[in-house]
Amino acid sequence: MSTEPPSSPVVDPWVARDAAVVWHGFTQMSTYPDSTPVIVDRAEGRELIDVNGTRYFDGISSLWVTTLGHHVPELDAAVIDQLGKVAHATLLGNGSRVTVEFAEALAAVVPVADPHVLFGSDGAVAVEQALKVAFQYWVNRGEAGHHQFIALGGAYHGDTVGALSVGDGGFGTTLFEPLRFPVIRTPGYASADWAAKMVSCIEANAATVAAVVIEPLVQGASGMLMADPADLALVGEACRSSGVLLICDEVATGFGRTGKLFASEWAGPDFRPDLLCLGKGITGGYLPLSATVASGAVFEAFNGPDLSEATFYHGHSYGGNALGCAVALRHLQLMDEWDVLANVTSVAERLSSRLSDTVLDLPGVGAIRQRGLMAGVELAPPPGSTRWGRRVCAGAVGRGVVLRPLGDVVVIMPPLTTTWDEIDRVVDVLARSIETVWAEDAR
Amino acid sequence: MSTEPPSSPVVDPWVARDAAVVWHGFTQMSTYPDSTPVIVDRAEGRELIDVNGTRYFDGISSLWVTTLGHHVPELDAAVIDQLGKVAHATLLGNGSRVTVEFAEALAAVVPVADPHVLFGSDGAVAVEQALKVAFQYWVNRGEAGHHQFIALGGAYHGDTVGALSVGDGGFGTTLFEPLRFPVIRTPGYASADWAAKMVSCIEANAATVAAVVIEPLVQGASGMLMADPADLALVGEACRSSGVLLICDEVATGFGRTGKLFASEWAGPDFRPDLLCLGKGITGGYLPLSATVASGAVFEAFNGPDLSEATFYHGHSYGGNALGCAVALRHLQLMDEWDVLANVTSVAERLSSRLSDTVLDLPGVGAIRQRGLMAGVELAPPPGSTRWGRRVCAGAVGRGVVLRPLGDVVVIMPPLTTTWDEIDRVVDVLARSIETVWAEDAR
Repeated sequence: MSTEPPSSPVVDPWVARDAAVVWHGFTQMSTYPDSTPVIVDRAEGRELIDVNGTRYFDGISSLWVTTLGHHVPELDAAVIDQLGKVAHATLLGNGSRVTVEFAEALAAVVPVADPHVLFGSDGAVAVEQALKVAFQYWVNRGEAGHHQFIALGGAYHGDTVGALSVGDGGFGTTLFEPLRFPVIRTPGYASADWAAKMVSCIEANAATVAAVVIEPLVQGASGMLMADPADLALVGEACRSSGVLLICDEVATGFGRTGKLFASEWAGPDFRPDLLCLGKGITGGYLPLSATVASGAVFEAFNGPDLSEATFYHGHSYGGNALGCAVALRHLQLMDEWDVLANVTSVAERLSSRLSDTVLDLPGVGAIRQRGLMAGVELAPPPGSTRWGRRVCAGAVGRGVVLRPLGDVVVIMPPLTTTWDEIDRVVDVLARSIETVWAEDAR
Repeated sequence: MSTEPPSSPVVDPWVARDAAVVWHGFTQMSTYPDSTPVIVDRAEGRELIDVNGTRYFDGISSLWVTTLGHHVPELDAAVIDQLGKVAHATLLGNGSRVTVEFAEALAAVVPVADPHVLFGSDGAVAVEQALKVAFQYWVNRGEAGHHQFIALGGAYHGDTVGALSVGDGGFGTTLFEPLRFPVIRTPGYASADWAAKMVSCIEANAATVAAVVIEPLVQGASGMLMADPADLALVGEACRSSGVLLICDEVATGFGRTGKLFASEWAGPDFRPDLLCLGKGITGGYLPLSATVASGAVFEAFNGPDLSEATFYHGHSYGGNALGCAVALRHLQLMDEWDVLANVTSVAERLSSRLSDTVLDLPGVGAIRQRGLMAGVELAPPPGSTRWGRRVCAGAVGRGVVLRPLGDVVVIMPPLTTTWDEIDRVVDVLARSIETVWAEDAR
């Protein structure tokens, strides 16, 4: 009988503490401690610093939320200033000054006609609010039977049951089918004729559809799939001419990520969502805040006598949170003051040229897709190789750049204030990580 | 032809700005400006201060979230301290030090066996996570057909589609029926034999049910309906003996509101939810944060190979937000250091006796229900009188106490640090407001 203890990898004490009590989303917890997760203690600019003092470039903007960077003095000051007034005041029946100020600033920049802002905290909630507003819009107008939604193949809109219903069952979530409401599905951006198919579908179903829901320009979670802005314009035109509402989910694409403040803007000034869903970058990556922006025409369908059924009986305790709105307001100002979009354009060009000359022709790379500072490198593993996305990103983390894959697509989504030098570091680290994994599998 | 402009009430400029851009939840916006809403600029202790400098006692804890008060130096300091480190770090695949520290502190006090914490930001999301975890639990164990949920009559669990499905269609939300999944409904706390009915239902449907979902002890949004703790214990026992999971939604009742840290504790040490939903008071009312706490037995059903289908593919960008966790951690410490529960017990007794001697026997009052610092005064308007809840609460606001009704039930839910003098002020203002509305309708 052996007296040896079973061998097991040495796990960092912080990782062990984390795995013992925190259940991480989208994460297999039984293997989490072995995947050398980064336990963030603090951050500066675009670098995360873990509990052991190791620094990492934040190549995924802390899951697509960070815009200007971490620990930004101006954003910190906005939170501290608001703390001196009030942290939170409910919007149910009453109001909050800083929430009004932020809503006014937001209304001035969104591509929505006569905008009205419903607040939440989670991005999925912004989608849920849009779906329910669109649904009730038709009921309030007395036009029966508009119970359906049209959504794209490969769509991802969040994980709550309504958001999951318009999503296309990725990440093995088809098991929740008995909880989801049915949706009319048309091909996603992976299909060259997605817009023509969706336009036909809108025209064929206009009498029963409440709304079309899309991620404009970029289907992020399904692997950074890109649409042609002209195709978006066609879908917008079909919605307008058919009277069907258009919901644009810009939780991922909003606030500069694509090189314009909102991805919808790429489709031209006539492309105006009836409902726009916002989250992630809305607070620069500081605090939970989400918003559903409705057009005046949609909003007015909910007017009626006090306490009447026309009212939208939906609300979240922390919607319009004062601290979140204070940082979101300052963030919008800084986007303008610092001309952040010009940096996105410049740095996106650098990323594009460096990916072309350093990564695209590597063995094991299939394709590169990019719009602004949202990019996906699709790996093409040799037959029999597995978990390439995971292994390449683990290699990048080991080299000091946090990346996270979607399957075998490596996502590159750095903060909007990233420099050319930092882009070079990310691309060089990615290239070396791909080469290493390729060499391992060639052995 | 008259040259007179149409008469309209004078609207405060801040209210006009608010109504022009913010769409308030659970609020009829066309009449909102006429209802003299309070636009909060800042707050101190338990008082809100509006944009005109007028002070109001916060009698509803800013919609049931504020616990220790507003602008609490210790909580402000916790946010500022964390701002000096990092505002947010994603939990998807990586970790965050302060999130681990808060999860450990929370795990030490929740009535859940071997607890594991899934974070979100909105309370409804905590419910959505619980429903989906319960559903997938059975799939992962290979036990087919557990697709149903049992929920109470009058239930309210939030407004996203999954949460709305287990809710009982209050606030006129039955219009969303085509989006909701079906649920087995048993009588709510308004029924004396609710527990017996639910126990029978659990036993009859154990083979097809994933979980039972309840608001333990208090059905808040349906009018502050109270359950006997012994009845809760019976339901817990039925779940355990039938193998059905028990979801306790303590978004409203958690963090001291009922006089214990969690309402589930009233049902005794053997009453252990498999899934516990938390929100609102979790950050003391400062920042959006919600959590679903799963037992070890539930958590372990999701273990499997890396990237396997057993994984819970669900996550929110701002889940476990560092600023929110920092204030939540300090809040839990202060609940203990300040012995806040002892104050709740003392002040709840004062509220009970003052309501009995000053409000209960007023004409127009039907019943009073209370547990800890959650109370509802059910009005009994004379025949033909309308909007009593609204009118009584408007009277209270005019007298410097913010109250908000649920239909004709006036909710009293002051912060947990409220003093006897403040309770006396709330009760006296409420009594005068009821008397005034009664006198108006008697004219």
